[in-house]
Amino acid sequence: MIEDKDFCHYSGLFSVASYEQKEIMTDSVTQLDYSQIMAMESRKRAQLINSLGGFKSVCLISTIDGTGSTNVAIFNSIFHIGANPPLIAFIVRPDSVDRHTLSNILETGMYTINHLNENIYKQAHQTSARYAKEISEFDATGLTREFKNGWKAPFVKESRIQMGVEFKQRLDIALNGTIMVIGEIKHISFPSDCLCVDGFVDIEKAKSITCSGLDSYHTTYRIGRLSYAKPDSTPNFVNIAYED
Amino acid sequence: MIEDKDFCHYSGLFSVASYEQKEIMTDSVTQLDYSQIMAMESRKRAQLINSLGGFKSVCLISTIDGTGSTNVAIFNSIFHIGANPPLIAFIVRPDSVDRHTLSNILETGMYTINHLNENIYKQAHQTSARYAKEISEFDATGLTREFKNGWKAPFVKESRIQMGVEFKQRLDIALNGTIMVIGEIKHISFPSDCLCVDGFVDIEKAKSITCSGLDSYHTTYRIGRLSYAKPDSTPNFVNIAYED
Repeated sequence: MIEDKDFCHYSGLFSVASYEQKEIMTDSVTQLDYSQIMAMESRKRAQLINSLGGFKSVCLISTIDGTGSTNVAIFNSIFHIGANPPLIAFIVRPDSVDRHTLSNILETGMYTINHLNENIYKQAHQTSARYAKEISEFDATGLTREFKNGWKAPFVKESRIQMGVEFKQRLDIALNGTIMVIGEIKHISFPSDCLCVDGFVDIEKAKSITCSGLDSYHTTYRIGRLSYAKPDSTPNFVNIAYED
Repeated sequence: MIEDKDFCHYSGLFSVASYEQKEIMTDSVTQLDYSQIMAMESRKRAQLINSLGGFKSVCLISTIDGTGSTNVAIFNSIFHIGANPPLIAFIVRPDSVDRHTLSNILETGMYTINHLNENIYKQAHQTSARYAKEISEFDATGLTREFKNGWKAPFVKESRIQMGVEFKQRLDIALNGTIMVIGEIKHISFPSDCLCVDGFVDIEKAKSITCSGLDSYHTTYRIGRLSYAKPDSTPNFVNIAYED
């Protein structure tokens, strides 16, 4: 079913032609109000609300405690805060396996954030199992610790994009008892052939993946990069120009 | 170049066979330390750091002010906070076009979050242009306001996954002057054929897209859903079972 009449009310700088307008399905839509959302069984609601957050940055966060025990855990609530200084944050649920990650970060002040790729997403997912504190998820899942550049916390060797991060701030979210952990990026590793001349790193070329909901993993296919938006023009495609 | 010797140190429950181990490129790696990151030209560093945050949830956030003027702007720092209550958050840069979104939310207490799809990503990107306050990005880009369910702020009609959100809390991040805005999801619309029996919404089937960096848009291809991780087993694929 196509109802172009509902969708093609373009005006201003935009036209159907310039956007290669495609079919829009106008099939059945489910609408839920607040009472319906809250009446759902809790695991079902968790699946629903996690899905609606959209595709997410999913990474392995690795830490070390004061005795040298290492930990690695998957997180799917990682987000950019700013580039100057280079800040990155994630959300911790203290009642979950996340708690080892948090306590290690608070103890040693440093951690690593490592992108997932298709070769390691199953091991990465497995790190969310409730292993005892004395078992390192590295040993349990076969992921490899990589110590380098004088960074105390291990990187995940199989990850192609790695960041060494220094703890900066903890923000407690009273609304639901979660904690936002903000860190500064101090070290970066990525495949050299993925760097573009403008500083953009082609994480798709590096085989990084994304996730949706609690457990769905996805590769990506670039539609395009768009030019910086200005009021008096429409966005153009930007060429992907890699550094030599 | 393949160096399996470096990559295949699996132990415990995992074996090369069970993970269909694939080739890992061990080509040249670029490593940057903190002084190199900070020495970069600022726009280049912004591209770099934004890329490294991984694939992101990219949505249109729409608001209305007290006089009835509407606003719609693209945000790529949206993240899940929790499902009970259903909380979602995003990061605002007060010195950018984001400021109209923030001031409207603080004035009226409500907004909508609308997923992007391939049909509207160019218009969505264009909303980041610095339009004057009196110009609505709806009119400038051809996106369509949809008022429904008694929600004061408009939804984006062309979006297939829409949320009506009530403002809950503002958290100022002193480290760089950004602001985290947390809201509670009060209304949800999605295509009925994308709902799974366990509450998961297949946002890939709904044609939602993701972004990387500041300007790169990507469709997705599901590798698989994985079962809940337990210490004594390896994850299995979960069937995608849609509701009737």
